[in-house]
Amino acid sequence: MKLLHTTPAADGFYMPAEFEEHDGCFMIWPERADSWQYGGIAAKIAFAQVAVAIAKSEEVTMLASLAEYDTARRMLPEHIRVVEMSTDDAWARDVAPTFVKSKDGEVRGIDWYFNAWGGLVDGLYFPWDKDNKVARKLCDLERLDCYDARDFVLEGGSIHSDGQGTVMVTEACLLSKGRNPDMTKEEIEQKLKDYLGAKKIIWLKRGIYLDETNEHVDNICAFVKPGEVVLAWTDDKDDPQYELSKSCYDILTQETDACGRKIVVHKLPLPKPICMQKEECDGLAWMEDEPTRTEGERLAASYVNFYISNGAVVMPFFDDPMDQVAAGILGDLFPEREIISIPARDILIGGGNIHCITQQLPKRKR
Amino acid sequence: MKLLHTTPAADGFYMPAEFEEHDGCFMIWPERADSWQYGGIAAKIAFAQVAVAIAKSEEVTMLASLAEYDTARRMLPEHIRVVEMSTDDAWARDVAPTFVKSKDGEVRGIDWYFNAWGGLVDGLYFPWDKDNKVARKLCDLERLDCYDARDFVLEGGSIHSDGQGTVMVTEACLLSKGRNPDMTKEEIEQKLKDYLGAKKIIWLKRGIYLDETNEHVDNICAFVKPGEVVLAWTDDKDDPQYELSKSCYDILTQETDACGRKIVVHKLPLPKPICMQKEECDGLAWMEDEPTRTEGERLAASYVNFYISNGAVVMPFFDDPMDQVAAGILGDLFPEREIISIPARDILIGGGNIHCITQQLPKRKR
Repeated sequence: MKLLHTTPAADGFYMPAEFEEHDGCFMIWPERADSWQYGGIAAKIAFAQVAVAIAKSEEVTMLASLAEYDTARRMLPEHIRVVEMSTDDAWARDVAPTFVKSKDGEVRGIDWYFNAWGGLVDGLYFPWDKDNKVARKLCDLERLDCYDARDFVLEGGSIHSDGQGTVMVTEACLLSKGRNPDMTKEEIEQKLKDYLGAKKIIWLKRGIYLDETNEHVDNICAFVKPGEVVLAWTDDKDDPQYELSKSCYDILTQETDACGRKIVVHKLPLPKPICMQKEECDGLAWMEDEPTRTEGERLAASYVNFYISNGAVVMPFFDDPMDQVAAGILGDLFPEREIISIPARDILIGGGNIHCITQQLPKRKR
Repeated sequence: MKLLHTTPAADGFYMPAEFEEHDGCFMIWPERADSWQYGGIAAKIAFAQVAVAIAKSEEVTMLASLAEYDTARRMLPEHIRVVEMSTDDAWARDVAPTFVKSKDGEVRGIDWYFNAWGGLVDGLYFPWDKDNKVARKLCDLERLDCYDARDFVLEGGSIHSDGQGTVMVTEACLLSKGRNPDMTKEEIEQKLKDYLGAKKIIWLKRGIYLDETNEHVDNICAFVKPGEVVLAWTDDKDDPQYELSKSCYDILTQETDACGRKIVVHKLPLPKPICMQKEECDGLAWMEDEPTRTEGERLAASYVNFYISNGAVVMPFFDDPMDQVAAGILGDLFPEREIISIPARDILIGGGNIHCITQQLPKRKR
């Protein structure tokens, strides 16, 4: 693996959209005892269901620690590849490389600095050294060259690309004190352009209420095709989420993308608030100096946190009346893809959802 | 990865010779403190030199534990692939899969049971669970199907194949009490034929004196082409090795191979006895209930323990007058390959040599 000190944009590379064709998907097997209740058994079942759903149309590689390798291998069918790799938790979106692609189909990785969503300011665990090595280790494993961007804190869940020069982010996350506090917004924007090959950055203000990633964009808004997004939405003006979603809506409907298109916004309803139950809290290990879940705490549930595989949209299911409504909207927006709903409460408890636990490898030309 | 319960022979697969073309080579980074003196620094340097020599003509993948990953990545050049994998020690020949190939160029692995060269009878360490998982983990990593042969104890260093139906082994190893004591010699022979696609097994009696693998064949005798072998040799009748080598010579010169050829035996001289020094012993950690090295102990040094890469023969160098003689003989036998000598005392101290720390992946048709 060559470690590259140039920038993707200068080398003619850009970040493809998730809805473009993939060679596969990376996931990480959940095991962290203060993230996943009761030994993570329910989470493992949910992760396995996600993996199986994605593997219907693209290769899935599951990274698992030495301790969990045998369990992962046993709980996953043979056609899912299991590879030993140590991590601090299970968020492939945020710790695996962001992949960029050239016009002639070469794919390279980007190794951002990962600091557990805020480092010593408001990060969610310490240390994060194993997570922070995943990106370049995966590039080495897959024989891909890797851009060294470790002078910049970023997670894959905080960026969405339309593959045509537009990247969407939230100010709440990218301008948070725990990321790159010494950089101006303009410097951050330039960094994104340099590394993602973007021409235009759309800055939403906020994300999903109480999203502990400092409101990653991938939980509130996602491209479904160039010029079109889905936005997590509630009509309940008493819900603190209303103002957050409304602010995104106002920005998006007044914006144009890198190609000059007006952006079409599809509202994707949110489920009713989902809160931690006592029994769930009781199943979590306690780690000193780290935030934990408390009974009644509202979780950052959103249907936007789906994964677009080659043949499907794999989306969360919350046992909520809106499950079918959201699935119907995504079905209309992705008529050529199967809509696969996975019971996701046990993923949500860990702090994210299906998009957060996956990272696509774009299709390479060989 | 499919785990297969048929046999390679029944499926039309056989074990190619090492001198046939490779897709690459697997190695394992040394770290075990009771195998590698003084933190293994000298061994790491030697392993890195071997990797670099092999990587001149084929891809090298170095497996390294989490603890040693950064050191391995730093001590190896970028073009050598480093992949995290936990092991108990560094003997890729014995713990990586034995690879078999079909006529149309498909490659599969075999997962033998590995018990640290003798299990609870006379194995060299305990436990060996991480080593015993390497074969199928590597198959999964490389997207190769894998034959399940875990009902049979075998190491890659105890077999040599000419790729044309002949396999060479030693009785000292394969009939040892710590391997498959409940099987007859005939049953073991049939197992080898079933899994290696062999028609004929040549049974040498013994290997190298004091070889703690129970005298693996790969330290005493190796095919250099179909019908021709090199045999570790001494003319000193007072050396206990003399009778061992002489016994091999007598068997080989009276044998024919699977194709009916008389076997041509090239004698490869041994270096002078190489013994452990006090300073080397002092650098080894101590693990209860395990054998250790003692001052003056003779090591199983042999030039036969070389690796044939696509473009080279990578052989040990012992700072002995025979180094050049042995290199000359191998140069004559492999005129199309570069002869690369690597200072190998620091590998030898661990209990093996260059062949023991490598495992070739045969060339696949894609």
